[in-house]
Amino acid sequence: MIYADNAATTKLDPAALDAMMVYLKDDYSNPSQPYSFSRQSKKALRESREIIANVIGAAPEEIYFTSGGSESDNWALKGLPYTEKSQIITSMIEHHAILNTCKEMEKHGIHLVYLRPEIDGTITADNLESEINNNTSLVSIMTVNNEIGTVQPVSELAEVAHKHGALFHTDAVQAVGHIPVNVKETGVDMLSASAHKFNGPRGIGFLYIKKGTPLSPFINGGAQEKHMRAGTENVASIVAMAEALRINAELMEENEAKLIRFEKIIEDGLKGIDYIRNGGSDHSPGVMSLSFRGMDGEALLHRMDLMNICISTGSACTSGRTTVSHVIDAIGLEDIYAKGTIRISLGRYNDEEDAVVIAKALRKITGVNV
Amino acid sequence: MIYADNAATTKLDPAALDAMMVYLKDDYSNPSQPYSFSRQSKKALRESREIIANVIGAAPEEIYFTSGGSESDNWALKGLPYTEKSQIITSMIEHHAILNTCKEMEKHGIHLVYLRPEIDGTITADNLESEINNNTSLVSIMTVNNEIGTVQPVSELAEVAHKHGALFHTDAVQAVGHIPVNVKETGVDMLSASAHKFNGPRGIGFLYIKKGTPLSPFINGGAQEKHMRAGTENVASIVAMAEALRINAELMEENEAKLIRFEKIIEDGLKGIDYIRNGGSDHSPGVMSLSFRGMDGEALLHRMDLMNICISTGSACTSGRTTVSHVIDAIGLEDIYAKGTIRISLGRYNDEEDAVVIAKALRKITGVNV
Repeated sequence: MIYADNAATTKLDPAALDAMMVYLKDDYSNPSQPYSFSRQSKKALRESREIIANVIGAAPEEIYFTSGGSESDNWALKGLPYTEKSQIITSMIEHHAILNTCKEMEKHGIHLVYLRPEIDGTITADNLESEINNNTSLVSIMTVNNEIGTVQPVSELAEVAHKHGALFHTDAVQAVGHIPVNVKETGVDMLSASAHKFNGPRGIGFLYIKKGTPLSPFINGGAQEKHMRAGTENVASIVAMAEALRINAELMEENEAKLIRFEKIIEDGLKGIDYIRNGGSDHSPGVMSLSFRGMDGEALLHRMDLMNICISTGSACTSGRTTVSHVIDAIGLEDIYAKGTIRISLGRYNDEEDAVVIAKALRKITGVNV
Repeated sequence: MIYADNAATTKLDPAALDAMMVYLKDDYSNPSQPYSFSRQSKKALRESREIIANVIGAAPEEIYFTSGGSESDNWALKGLPYTEKSQIITSMIEHHAILNTCKEMEKHGIHLVYLRPEIDGTITADNLESEINNNTSLVSIMTVNNEIGTVQPVSELAEVAHKHGALFHTDAVQAVGHIPVNVKETGVDMLSASAHKFNGPRGIGFLYIKKGTPLSPFINGGAQEKHMRAGTENVASIVAMAEALRINAELMEENEAKLIRFEKIIEDGLKGIDYIRNGGSDHSPGVMSLSFRGMDGEALLHRMDLMNICISTGSACTSGRTTVSHVIDAIGLEDIYAKGTIRISLGRYNDEEDAVVIAKALRKITGVNV
């Protein structure tokens, strides 16, 4: 089997699994307890926070562990103080964890503005500038789009937000561990991440909250995470997340070079076929959104599946629908191409042979249009 | 080392870990994806839901996976439709995941009533009856108290709630896997549970939501859990939770008999010492809240720790505080005893020798008062 759906979820790094095993097996202590048995898990928790903070340029005390990207996104948006006049600006191509949270907040009287991206998926600072005003409490724009891979100009967008007194959040679920992310350089106030997108386990993620951001807890209860996120600390998964991120950050350049090479192999294999590659030149390595003229994305996925290749039609969350995804819709792709969209997302565990086989398979399936 | 803090967290069952490994290692597929690779994880998810539903007498479609007890509690309380007049009735001895959520909701205009328990920790139906009215939207009373082990008369309490048109939620985090819990028999509308309290992994739990309960999603986003709880399904942890619960349910009677025997050994060992055992005769097996006259709970904990025995002063979430816990405070225990409170919580992996050693250690430490 060839797994080319790494933007949906990734294989757990064996070293991360090893790190996890210690806390799944022998050290099951609750790190919030005062006895000696908890000393090691307390230390592991502290070190994991430091590793993660270090990778994204934050201070350890600005990292708050959550159950994943969706929780982090919900928290960042719902946890701020709003007034009746409050406005949130986001984009039409955010993940559903943002879009459906925004829809929920609209029901509670928050005014929402959804920015339309350029054809390559970019949300420009000019676009944000034209919509922002004094009532804008928060701007939330993703760092990397999960369907088409576009990398947003986060620094510029955060600067516009701050100029108008708004906070800036970024859903960096598809970015952390894949492209360089530095919260101090970009100046974001909050950043969401999820471990299973960077070869860590499921059910764990974090929210970076810049010191001084007026965010309230989302899950109330015990005193964990400085009273900001209740629930017995999931030490095993936290340690594995930190280890996976450390390794992915270390291998980032090497991995990027490899993935760009594999993308080239696939693109070369598709020469002469009528398709459009979505997303701009500044994209997350390995994410390829391809729209084949006159084809059906679902059918392509199933034919690839019969050849033992796992790909996606869009984000995992919209799978099962045969309609065009909200992202492809928002970039305004011509319908004859839009319906034939698939996403190939390559990761650390793919090799050159995978790329060759994918190219051949796609050529065989779509070749009818050559 | 003797681990006697099973009410804080438990050792993962090796069979549950084995079940988990399949999905941590080889089958990392996203169960929401349509390709063949996801078939097995989809099936595992369905089977886990069935196992859990079966243990608590629910229908599989009434089980919603969450990141644990705190999330389940927050969801159950925050997710209902309220009006300006809405009232919630809970008790003074709930877990902080309930109490701090209630405090947060009070800030948003919900009227809260906190029932005071009897000296043995029981919340009576009469007590509830005297406070409930037509504005009561929800009654939330825990099934088992985590500090003193008292089992509440959940069926009677739910009946009173329903008679007055209110919904009934129970935080059963300390009950599921330990005492028989059947949602159809007790008639509760919502029930929270957490895997790591019954030898499952951390970071996973569930909320039982009776069909027809008007609960909105708490974490918005993807279509997982029938659009009710977003986030890529944590298959490995879900499978392990189901396996741990299945085993604990199977061993429940045997385990109870064993733990009651161990309790007796400890109580016998303490004969002649001036202490009070908190909680009523109907308590969760293995949970012993002991208050030693004139002693200091924190000091007892540390002296036990020096003898390699892990116990608690109260709930894990209140550890670090030297004050009397909210539970001990609410049952109205005399101060001279209250400050000398410790919690011993025995579990499946304790043996008779542990009980003997704990009794001897306690006798040695507290013997000064004999």
